Amino acid sequence: MIFESVGKNVNIERGAHFGKGFRIRIGDNSGLGINCQIPDGSIIGSNVMMGPNCYIHAMNHIFTRTDIPMIQQGFGPSEPVVIEDDVWIGRDVTIMVGRHISKGTIIAANCVLTKDFPSFSIVGGNPSCLIRDRRDSVKYV
Amino acid sequence: MIFESVGKNVNIERGAHFGKGFRIRIGDNSGLGINCQIPDGSIIGSNVMMGPNCYIHAMNHIFTRTDIPMIQQGFGPSEPVVIEDDVWIGRDVTIMVGRHISKGTIIAANCVLTKDFPSFSIVGGNPSCLIRDRRDSVKYV
Amino acid sequence: MIFESVGKNVNIERGAHFGKGFRIRIGDNSGLGINCQIPDGSIIGSNVMMGPNCYIHAMNHIFTRTDIPMIQQGFGPSEPVVIEDDVWIGRDVTIMVGRHISKGTIIAANCVLTKDFPSFSIVGGNPSCLIRDRRDSVKYV
Repeated sequence: MIFESVGKNVNIERGAHFGKGFRIRIGDNSGLGINCQIPDGSIIGSNVMMGPNCYIHAMNHIFTRTDIPMIQQGFGPSEPVVIEDDVWIGRDVTIMVGRHISKGTIIAANCVLTKDFPSFSIVGGNPSCLIRDRRDSVKYV
Repeated sequence: MIFESVGKNVNIERGAHFGKGFRIRIGDNSGLGINCQIPDGSIIGSNVMMGPNCYIHAMNHIFTRTDIPMIQQGFGPSEPVVIEDDVWIGRDVTIMVGRHISKGTIIAANCVLTKDFPSFSIVGGNPSCLIRDRRDSVKYV
Repeated sequence: MIFESVGKNVNIERGAHFGKGFRIRIGDNSGLGINCQIPDGSIIGSNVMMGPNCYIHAMNHIFTRTDIPMIQQGFGPSEPVVIEDDVWIGRDVTIMVGRHISKGTIIAANCVLTKDFPSFSIVGGNPSCLIRDRRDSVKYV
């Protein structure tokens, strides 16, 4: 078994990549979108919708020294992404290393998620900004 | 015939998707770019240039209720996109549901078009911002 | 020989496109990422890392006149991109016509590089913004 746990009614689309599947958990009724890339260690809740071509970053190059080239500095530690329940991730979304996506969040198509946001946020843009709270009727931006 | 109307000298590149082609209209000398996705009902004028990998969104998930998961709330209505004459759409542009692109507009590469802009605008960014009016020589941003 | 010059230990990934390779120079220990598109005339230094799907724009449509369609106005001149030594270009980065990337720069994943920045900048977003200087510990944005 390649995942650590898989819920009921999970839909994995064609072209979905998930490394070796080590320590990946996914809840009920959730999906991995077409051509997505999900690294080892990702934790995905229930009722998570994901559009095509989503990419979750697992680690970064180290770049702390400027006296030697970055290519000689290796990689930083892997930091897993957590996606809570009832999250809608649009197509072509990029999720940076270690992000935590709270319950009820919408990540708009083509967003580059660089920060964490509260539950029920609608988030979009590159870099990611809060568009509004789903429970409000007023737009912040 | 799969389109509602097609002008003269229209160029449809490889990998172009256009749903069932229902109610799609396209004018003279216009093109659909490589791997573009154009939903049913799209209206495209004359002399429209389109780079590769452009994506037009046709509809959204409904997310008005927060007491039940979004995955149980279905889809909103389809809202067709209108592209007027003499528009240049760069590569990898995403056009959100129901947008109206006015005559003479340039949409820069990789733009996510979330709003409508006046004729002869140069628009770019994610989310989309006005860069300048083509008839001005001054940059706004 | 298709490149003007190629250093030692250069890694060209599958799907890399580089036009006819005319006047392309690339230094030691550098790589062209999976599915990248590098136009003729590009100059790439040593120790340059490049993620998948990077795209370098070579030229633009001309759009100075608004009384005739852009499709009839042809193309502007090709302006080559220069990438200095020790640059890390993340995946899905787009580099606009004629940009100059200085030594030690990091271009974050999915950035659309529309401006030039000083050496050792960390740059991201669409359009591109300075995130911070690698030699500082403080974030500007």
